[in-house]
Amino acid sequence: MGRYRTGTAAMKKYQQLAQQLTEQIALGVWLPGDRLPSLREQVISSGMSFMTVSHAYQLLESQGRIVARPQSGYYVAPQPVKLRQPAPPAQVTRDEAVDINTYIFEVLQASRQASMLPFASAFPDPRLFPLQQLNRSLAQVSKTATAMSVIENLPPGNAELRHAIARRYALQGMNVSPDEIVITAGALEALNLSLQAVTEPGDWVVVENPCFYGALQALERLRLKALSVATDVREGIDLTALEAALQNYPVKACWLMTNGQNPLGFTLSAEKKAALVALLARYNVMLIEDDVYSELYFGREKPLPAKFWDRQEMTLHCSSFSKCLVPGFRIGWVAAGKQARRIQQLQLMSTLSTSSPMQLALVDYLSTKRYDAHLRRLRRQLAERKQQAWQALLRHLPPEVIVHHSDSGYFLWIELPEGADASALSARALASHISIAPGKMFSTSDSWTSFFRFNTAWGWGEREEQGVKRLGELIREQLA
Amino acid sequence: MGRYRTGTAAMKKYQQLAQQLTEQIALGVWLPGDRLPSLREQVISSGMSFMTVSHAYQLLESQGRIVARPQSGYYVAPQPVKLRQPAPPAQVTRDEAVDINTYIFEVLQASRQASMLPFASAFPDPRLFPLQQLNRSLAQVSKTATAMSVIENLPPGNAELRHAIARRYALQGMNVSPDEIVITAGALEALNLSLQAVTEPGDWVVVENPCFYGALQALERLRLKALSVATDVREGIDLTALEAALQNYPVKACWLMTNGQNPLGFTLSAEKKAALVALLARYNVMLIEDDVYSELYFGREKPLPAKFWDRQEMTLHCSSFSKCLVPGFRIGWVAAGKQARRIQQLQLMSTLSTSSPMQLALVDYLSTKRYDAHLRRLRRQLAERKQQAWQALLRHLPPEVIVHHSDSGYFLWIELPEGADASALSARALASHISIAPGKMFSTSDSWTSFFRFNTAWGWGEREEQGVKRLGELIREQLA
Repeated sequence: MGRYRTGTAAMKKYQQLAQQLTEQIALGVWLPGDRLPSLREQVISSGMSFMTVSHAYQLLESQGRIVARPQSGYYVAPQPVKLRQPAPPAQVTRDEAVDINTYIFEVLQASRQASMLPFASAFPDPRLFPLQQLNRSLAQVSKTATAMSVIENLPPGNAELRHAIARRYALQGMNVSPDEIVITAGALEALNLSLQAVTEPGDWVVVENPCFYGALQALERLRLKALSVATDVREGIDLTALEAALQNYPVKACWLMTNGQNPLGFTLSAEKKAALVALLARYNVMLIEDDVYSELYFGREKPLPAKFWDRQEMTLHCSSFSKCLVPGFRIGWVAAGKQARRIQQLQLMSTLSTSSPMQLALVDYLSTKRYDAHLRRLRRQLAERKQQAWQALLRHLPPEVIVHHSDSGYFLWIELPEGADASALSARALASHISIAPGKMFSTSDSWTSFFRFNTAWGWGEREEQGVKRLGELIREQLA
Repeated sequence: MGRYRTGTAAMKKYQQLAQQLTEQIALGVWLPGDRLPSLREQVISSGMSFMTVSHAYQLLESQGRIVARPQSGYYVAPQPVKLRQPAPPAQVTRDEAVDINTYIFEVLQASRQASMLPFASAFPDPRLFPLQQLNRSLAQVSKTATAMSVIENLPPGNAELRHAIARRYALQGMNVSPDEIVITAGALEALNLSLQAVTEPGDWVVVENPCFYGALQALERLRLKALSVATDVREGIDLTALEAALQNYPVKACWLMTNGQNPLGFTLSAEKKAALVALLARYNVMLIEDDVYSELYFGREKPLPAKFWDRQEMTLHCSSFSKCLVPGFRIGWVAAGKQARRIQQLQLMSTLSTSSPMQLALVDYLSTKRYDAHLRRLRRQLAERKQQAWQALLRHLPPEVIVHHSDSGYFLWIELPEGADASALSARALASHISIAPGKMFSTSDSWTSFFRFNTAWGWGEREEQGVKRLGELIREQLA
């Protein structure tokens, strides 16, 4: 792996071992269900330290390639990872009018009841967040807020906060001026304002298939036309299909996720990000990059956004603190380049600004320098929980079900056997107080009716275990 | 006056005296510039108590009908109050594409600089707000906020806050269920979501002429067509012109302000509100009622919204805490009747929700029961400041300039002699670090080029006095 931007830096030893084992699994040296050499055996055979071997196994586990069974050892995960793509000619699907909201709204409303197992949720478990420290920052703001801070924090938002965000870009080797950053009500407002800034009603916009439903909702709201481009569970968007779309339609913008894509979970490779940016630039198409999961990687380094490769200010990079620090503050941003002014105007017209004490509290929190320690802990917890959920799913779902794993974030993309209907499953599961997010939410097409998204960020206990068991029973009933 | 809803309740003695003097002024018993009987003289002649007489004079002063001169007494204000209406046939102006944002944005941006006298500002002076108590509530939230409060406060928003708002409606004799209230990012989001909920792009929408520029911006953003209906500085919207518009165009919605209209300042009479609601119902047109200034009345009782007379859930009543308690929290709401669900959906798609700690802090603040005492103090201060600014304007502006007074809020609508250009004046004033809000911001037509709005909510001192003096000089130069 190494730094994405070089692509050549030397791998750590544990990464080399993990890659070696991955290749062995791919070659069939180790078959699904096989027990791998124990840590001790591996130490002896490889000559590496116990720490290195243990680290390699943990990495493979977090990537879903192997499973740990207590008192027994590590086993190769039972997963064929080829995603069944929708039948051709669906590489590009067009939709002149997007209408999906009512369905999404109903699923989300149902999943919010306290009695419901929140596997449909788009949120991480808020108990993962540093509530106490955030509250301390809130208390600090309550001591120092001045009457004038309202006006100082009108668009583009609090200057210190924009500086803090710009400094985080700088740590990744990106030169983003605080002046091109606009603070928004979460990433969702950033994405909506960005889309509005670069399109007119009736324009064509490329989205992934499947994609975050927020993109489809935004298209519907702004009366835009969708070109859904085939997107693979491991490789991401199909660049050949994307180019075909760009050749055949006057596309204005492309909205996609480059890191920890929702719902599939993949992170685009550095090479693919660079190629994507180059391709869009060739066709003069703006990239709206939804990068809300970039902090939730399980590898060694934070992946770069596609914006890193953009030299022509064609990328509007949108992110937030909602998925990695505090959803309730509703603070996100867009690094908008020369579109920043237009976006400020649009914000002044719609919500006016983001709440001032929330911005000030974040500035205070970030100044404590605890953010990175929190993120490290969060990533570890999310990786553990994902692992736990994944194992439970493997235990309880019928073997024909494919659980597509990914090494970031807190979603699993689950594929039922062909012909099974995830929406019907969802309806039956709700009656058992279990929510799941059916594939239908993530596309304007019918390509994903047998898929669903499963949230793994919530604590795992007996209730969750029973919920997954029940889900397995419901799937078996449907297949019978 | 009395309770608006009855229209017949007995007036207090001081109100009777004030009305009597108002009639005398209208009849020419007392001419502009005349000195009124002193308080002592009036006590003797009327047989009323000193308190009653003093109260009546204060009311007349707050309404702009008389002016107090220190060590001298009370004088009839020098104001002919007939507003020059734009030339016919402009009773209804149509605009198929609204394009006003860039101009508004530039004026607002310029007025935000700290060195600028903020007479263009849309905000009241934030120092008028109970910062200390609000900060106490924020500190309280920082002690009690739970991890789950994020999710509990998704649309429609915090249940306790919606209850508190519903109780305030109840105090005015209105039955508004907490379930039909949606908490929003200020009134601006409430208004935008409401407009979007009841229209499709290309629809016709009635607005006032002149109107709050936020309405024009929303129309532009949502690609709606504007019918601007003549609106009088004292009487509000011309119902005959409105009916003509409804007869001739397939109007979907009417967006207007009923209390303390921006920029004119009038409050519609109860009778007119009732007639307006009945007229719109006859043509099946939704009313989007912008009521953000309702707490800033200078009279005895809080005026009712038009929604009070609506029996068919055709009114979306939008308001906020931004103008009367705390702009920086960005908390508003809409009482949306059966549109509440649709508005929640639209909010989930655009900003997701309002920040949770801000909602909780407001709940805490409202529970302290200090809100009404604050509002009483705020109203008194705003009335005093308006009076101060008004007197300074009368002192320093050329006599041909008409300052239209109103008995609520913190705006004065100022009319330059015909042919004078308020936009040019604004540009020259900015060079002297004085911002004003030119009439052009409040209309898609050119009807108001010689008008501007003047914010009176900021503390008055030597700098403000000199600013108004300079404004007078600039006007004289323009007229010369």
